[in-house]
Amino acid sequence: MNHSSDGNNEKSAIIIGAGLVGSLWAIYLNKAGYKVNVYERRPDMRQANMSAGKSINLATSYRGWKALDAVGVGDEIRKIAIPMYGRTLHHLDGEQKYQPYGNDGQAIYSVSRGAINAQLMTIATTNSSAQIHFNEECTNVELGNGTAIFKNSLTGIITEAKADVVFATDGAFSAARYHGFQKLDRFSYSQNYIPDGYREILLPANEDGSYKLNSETLHIWPRGRFMLIALPNFDGSFTCTLFMPFDGDKYCFNNLTSREKVTDFFQEVFPDFYAMMPNVADKWEQHPLSSLAIIRCFPWTSGKFALMGDAAHATVPFFGQGMNAGFEDCTVMWQLMQKHHEDWSAVFKEYETIRKPNGDAVQDLSLQNYIVMRDRVADPGFLLLQKIERRINLLYPQSYFPLYSMVSFTDITYETALNKGNEQEKMIQQLIAEHQIAEHTSEEMIDGIIHDFMSRNI
Amino acid sequence: MNHSSDGNNEKSAIIIGAGLVGSLWAIYLNKAGYKVNVYERRPDMRQANMSAGKSINLATSYRGWKALDAVGVGDEIRKIAIPMYGRTLHHLDGEQKYQPYGNDGQAIYSVSRGAINAQLMTIATTNSSAQIHFNEECTNVELGNGTAIFKNSLTGIITEAKADVVFATDGAFSAARYHGFQKLDRFSYSQNYIPDGYREILLPANEDGSYKLNSETLHIWPRGRFMLIALPNFDGSFTCTLFMPFDGDKYCFNNLTSREKVTDFFQEVFPDFYAMMPNVADKWEQHPLSSLAIIRCFPWTSGKFALMGDAAHATVPFFGQGMNAGFEDCTVMWQLMQKHHEDWSAVFKEYETIRKPNGDAVQDLSLQNYIVMRDRVADPGFLLLQKIERRINLLYPQSYFPLYSMVSFTDITYETALNKGNEQEKMIQQLIAEHQIAEHTSEEMIDGIIHDFMSRNI
Repeated sequence: MNHSSDGNNEKSAIIIGAGLVGSLWAIYLNKAGYKVNVYERRPDMRQANMSAGKSINLATSYRGWKALDAVGVGDEIRKIAIPMYGRTLHHLDGEQKYQPYGNDGQAIYSVSRGAINAQLMTIATTNSSAQIHFNEECTNVELGNGTAIFKNSLTGIITEAKADVVFATDGAFSAARYHGFQKLDRFSYSQNYIPDGYREILLPANEDGSYKLNSETLHIWPRGRFMLIALPNFDGSFTCTLFMPFDGDKYCFNNLTSREKVTDFFQEVFPDFYAMMPNVADKWEQHPLSSLAIIRCFPWTSGKFALMGDAAHATVPFFGQGMNAGFEDCTVMWQLMQKHHEDWSAVFKEYETIRKPNGDAVQDLSLQNYIVMRDRVADPGFLLLQKIERRINLLYPQSYFPLYSMVSFTDITYETALNKGNEQEKMIQQLIAEHQIAEHTSEEMIDGIIHDFMSRNI
Repeated sequence: MNHSSDGNNEKSAIIIGAGLVGSLWAIYLNKAGYKVNVYERRPDMRQANMSAGKSINLATSYRGWKALDAVGVGDEIRKIAIPMYGRTLHHLDGEQKYQPYGNDGQAIYSVSRGAINAQLMTIATTNSSAQIHFNEECTNVELGNGTAIFKNSLTGIITEAKADVVFATDGAFSAARYHGFQKLDRFSYSQNYIPDGYREILLPANEDGSYKLNSETLHIWPRGRFMLIALPNFDGSFTCTLFMPFDGDKYCFNNLTSREKVTDFFQEVFPDFYAMMPNVADKWEQHPLSSLAIIRCFPWTSGKFALMGDAAHATVPFFGQGMNAGFEDCTVMWQLMQKHHEDWSAVFKEYETIRKPNGDAVQDLSLQNYIVMRDRVADPGFLLLQKIERRINLLYPQSYFPLYSMVSFTDITYETALNKGNEQEKMIQQLIAEHQIAEHTSEEMIDGIIHDFMSRNI
């Protein structure tokens, strides 16, 4: 079989991978008048009723919505998104504490990975003329001439597809990157697994369909070196995920080798969760133990190929920015298409130059936020810092954003957010020390310190 | 075709890659009674009169000789090795300075990569019963059951080979690692190119066959951000290598785009070399511009497979330890074979555990020594430090070794050498500052300071 753009003047594009970024990018390219063929290794998840691989619930935030709204699909996705306005921390003694993510109704939105992916596929193939070919595994690529070879896993038929431009959105273990980029001279590449893995647990709804926990927040059981989190689903359930080292001291996955050990573990370290789900050990094997990697590479483009999303910058999930960063790749690529009038060589050059530092930064932010979530959120010093930051942000909403807000509620580049966020934290720590600010310090006094500080620093 | 160990009780091993480490390891395994089949992607270099890939001259030092001597092949290799007792530095003004590498006849030995490889292949297949199959490209592996698939590049015939144990010694871009290890969950991997490349230049012998430079030293033209080096060959020529950034400011490969620019460059920055070889620009294209990478990965073993040499820990060539580190892998693997009575699962586990930190360390040492060679060797402060270190080593030969000596003239682990070397440098710097030692300080006074220092510190 041969899909090719030869013989007519229509602009053509191939997208490898019909995941989140590939499906959205198909909509963008169709809008620009490209004949888009998307090749997806898996069966059609909408028919097979399967998840798109590993399924940590996703949190859509500002960058994600921006990219979705730019092609008019945001509202469709909003229908399947649940706002989370802050974190609810579950301490060992049963105490719960709430920390807002931002000010005034700012939220991140829990979405099921499968649901958003299915919706984007449907929009791509109905509202636009993109075609998705399922069960097509990429077995080779020729970067220079825009060719990709696919093998159909059902029929065994080999397809050689060729287009003006090819986008690899085939995820952390991108076949296009493996078969093509990794054979380039001077291609830098690293895949580094963190010592921690994760396992999902579904906390079901109550019998009447209601939620067992407040559905308007993200729940965290921070325990220092490990943590449990829970994100709401539409049906009243929560998708919970335990993040913990594979090996090591007392609390690690390799020690949880029997139903009894799992039960004891939950009773001991998550007693309030255990009370809601005393059969947790029965459900333990329903989801696999999975690993977590940071994958960095460069260049991201070569010849007629570009890597986007996880294929370029797969990260660990702790800032909820993996999908958002991939969607922002679409925003950036789209802006550069306009700027360079679809001169793809110029688009690709600038895309990888401006986007690579942000790929690195979102990875650094993700690693950093693991420590925030599992440990620092339970530290009174950190809570005080966050409180002051939110207050500065409220008093000076145009000139000061806490790190979490910069990442989740603006499109300030990840690189700037990372650098500025770390600088700001140092400044606030100094302010706290200098003025001996404590939990009980009056709002009036804090406001005075903030006004004085901001007049000197902004 | 099917090469297998099934059906008899002979112990069998496959080695993928008949390079330096593969050929030497074949001799070891044969000695232990293994039926050894070596599969090599290239034609037989001894017939084809070709080099084994990129051909920086190699420097054999203590670890290399130790591994060669343990199976009785050191003396054969010594016949083709030229001792280099120190460095000769060529400064811009034409001044030459000599720095001994060690004390009393300690030397590293220049060998041609092709010559040592050919010799080891011949010994492996004549003195031992190992068989080398040429033109066999590894196209797939099954780590768990010791299977490797090869495709003959001349006949197209596919061979499935299977053995009790398989060693991948197929270099920096190991096919076994690519097809096997890289698909393992939680396999950490990185390939990072340094910003510098290299190009070789052959400085021919004089017409009477004599050397144009002293043949008993390694020559360096240190120029800060780049350098030229020269190692002697048996025929009176020198293999010279220019190391320099690809891109960047004035002095980079991408600026040397014409014969005129090459000529001007050598006249300006290597005038004494240019005087010996005014036709350098004519020879410029005879060798390709090549890149330099550090490749790290882990684990090094899985199932019946182990990575050795560059396949496990490819490094940049600046400490002359790439081959020596690979040969030392043989020494370590051999010791563990004895210790664990060829229980390969135990051998592999301990091999990767004790050897990985040394693979990392030899890479760090190599990067560090690039800065020493291209820059610090020309710094009077560094020369003074080296002079004092050599003197301590001479007075306390059992208890103090300079870093270069630990790496090149002992088998102290690379990890220990790296840590201890950096500690020692700090101590000597302190000693110099504290006692205001300078170039003109008398030997008597220095000896006094050393004796006092050593009595307090060792």
